[in-house]
Amino acid sequence: MPKIPPKLRDVYVVGVGMTPFARHEDKTFVDLGSWAIRDALGDAGLPFEALEAAWCGHVAQGSTAGQKVVGAVGQTGIPVMNVENACASGTSAFRGAYLQVASGIADVALAVGFERMGRGALPMPKTPGEKSEAPPKQEPKPGKKPAPPFPSLFAQLFREHSRRFGTTVEQMAKVGVKNHHHGALNPRAQYREECTVQQVLESREIADPLTLLMCCPTGSGSAAAVLCSEDVARQAEGKAARILASTFVSEAANTTGDSLHGVVEINTRAAGTAYQLAGVKPEEIEVCELHDCFAIAEIIHYENLGFCERGEGGRFVESGMSALGGQVAVNPSGGLLAKGHPLGATGVAQVFEIVTQLRGEAGERQVQGARIGLTHCQGFGGATGVHIFTR
Amino acid sequence: MPKIPPKLRDVYVVGVGMTPFARHEDKTFVDLGSWAIRDALGDAGLPFEALEAAWCGHVAQGSTAGQKVVGAVGQTGIPVMNVENACASGTSAFRGAYLQVASGIADVALAVGFERMGRGALPMPKTPGEKSEAPPKQEPKPGKKPAPPFPSLFAQLFREHSRRFGTTVEQMAKVGVKNHHHGALNPRAQYREECTVQQVLESREIADPLTLLMCCPTGSGSAAAVLCSEDVARQAEGKAARILASTFVSEAANTTGDSLHGVVEINTRAAGTAYQLAGVKPEEIEVCELHDCFAIAEIIHYENLGFCERGEGGRFVESGMSALGGQVAVNPSGGLLAKGHPLGATGVAQVFEIVTQLRGEAGERQVQGARIGLTHCQGFGGATGVHIFTR
Repeated sequence: MPKIPPKLRDVYVVGVGMTPFARHEDKTFVDLGSWAIRDALGDAGLPFEALEAAWCGHVAQGSTAGQKVVGAVGQTGIPVMNVENACASGTSAFRGAYLQVASGIADVALAVGFERMGRGALPMPKTPGEKSEAPPKQEPKPGKKPAPPFPSLFAQLFREHSRRFGTTVEQMAKVGVKNHHHGALNPRAQYREECTVQQVLESREIADPLTLLMCCPTGSGSAAAVLCSEDVARQAEGKAARILASTFVSEAANTTGDSLHGVVEINTRAAGTAYQLAGVKPEEIEVCELHDCFAIAEIIHYENLGFCERGEGGRFVESGMSALGGQVAVNPSGGLLAKGHPLGATGVAQVFEIVTQLRGEAGERQVQGARIGLTHCQGFGGATGVHIFTR
Repeated sequence: MPKIPPKLRDVYVVGVGMTPFARHEDKTFVDLGSWAIRDALGDAGLPFEALEAAWCGHVAQGSTAGQKVVGAVGQTGIPVMNVENACASGTSAFRGAYLQVASGIADVALAVGFERMGRGALPMPKTPGEKSEAPPKQEPKPGKKPAPPFPSLFAQLFREHSRRFGTTVEQMAKVGVKNHHHGALNPRAQYREECTVQQVLESREIADPLTLLMCCPTGSGSAAAVLCSEDVARQAEGKAARILASTFVSEAANTTGDSLHGVVEINTRAAGTAYQLAGVKPEEIEVCELHDCFAIAEIIHYENLGFCERGEGGRFVESGMSALGGQVAVNPSGGLLAKGHPLGATGVAQVFEIVTQLRGEAGERQVQGARIGLTHCQGFGGATGVHIFTR
């Protein structure tokens, strides 16, 4: 059981900001990051000078990118920390800002995530001087190019989940339909078009059986959150959301040989600890942003987060329980599939959505009366962060 | 005045490890990082399983490099955070581990810095989609190639310091002589050869008037430190060094137009706050590892750290006050100039040296009876960390 630290202060999110996720070919990452920071400060009703620390999540924006982004808004000499944990870089930045306020070192801290990406599938991360950890390769069909690495990896996870639990391609398609439906309701989503199960199934094959509408796009964007102590939150006139739990872990060694280990162990553990810290049960979560980089990931994460039993994820989405109006609205923002996934931005954008939902300000995609929400963000092979919030 | 956080716990360094700094062409960054971690754990007398968090500093080792390095030693699922702040990446990792223990979230945390570098001068950091911030260019002399950017920048800082305070090229050469003398006494230094003022002056010109022996080399290596709470330190039989102060800041806007701003303001402020937190005066520091990326940097940092008055840095080194046996032994390890500067490793390697000195285990380069030591690490344009230690 994880140690529950005795002296931490309550931490609140008092302001959130987010650019639309899009190609943004005319924008730099500084344009995007500074936009989100300005929006978050405006939302918090705080001047830049109130910030005592900044934590910046990004993957491939170069050395000291955070200083450039934060410096475009203000330069008061506060500590600026750049953090990287692949697709979990945004949640890592949020975790850092949480630590800074929870420890009492700062009363107000900024978390910002940003990424300016090009087109095309992500390569596996390059590590100079290291042998690359190639994912399981699929033999390309005759006349076809080999599938890109991350979709191949998740196609393999689908096959394994399907073999054990009977999960179907149609159930994956239903994740795509749901999240594209949600995305259509979100003005900041990269893709805002509804689609049918048939359209998902018939969209371009990326890595058999994953099709385009079961895979998150690349794109650009930024999100920011202002975290603060209770004293500061009290002045914010009911806008602040309270962080009930913050957990951040990496993957434990696979001692059982379980072929789903990489997408199960780290997430189950991070979520279990978060529920324990928050004193909240999975069935109390009303709104959730989870890391649906591929449709099969969302299905497995329902199970990891305790929304259903192990192996029931496919049937959970089929039943409508994870849609707006269901037991728990999962990815009302459109999730990575429709809202988009500018790597470093994602973890903070999830916080943007949950805080917006808890305030009742989510417009057409509002989860009625939502009081408890959860974010889940995984950098594959790297790190997972889970945060639970309440109004 | 910076807020003094009320609830932080005392934090100790209970184990340190460091590879030699060298070319290491046969090693990967995983080899180097895991070597330093094993040494630090062995030194602390703790198993990997005692670690509750790991903070990893590196600049250009790729996505989730920390997970690869830590995972080569053990994989218990602890949080692994990759941090980047240019040449201050190591001190950023140390700061993160400090926060984790000081806040009570962890009782034992690891800081590791590592870098596997190629040969040749560093380019200015590339930031995709951004205009590059070119340093002041020197016109190349007829028949010469243009000087590389970082040496050019520090050559310009020398000219400015010289103009205002009369600092001489010979005084810079004396920094080189001193640090190469110290490096010759350090088995882990990349360069272990004594040199004379004349040899420094006559070594290859890098950016007029900076010569090769006034500039730090590129190289590879790693250093690690195990940080812990007082309870854990008590079991370590007198090996633990106590952290009296940890400060970590970024550069404030240059509102005065001071042309030395970037190398003065951030460092003076970080040091001032550290002295205040520690309740220690500059003249009480007996041993110091500071960021001598170029000889002129060391001269200006004497002033920034309060070892002498502003403008007196050149005369301070000339007087022998900063050598082994002087008022404050500065860079007894050889510093960046002779020990080497594998970017992410540097900030933690400074801690290795200070802890080794405070334990009286520094062999030929021992500062007799040293009781209070300081580390100073700057990522130019990025961040500065200052830490003060005692036995």
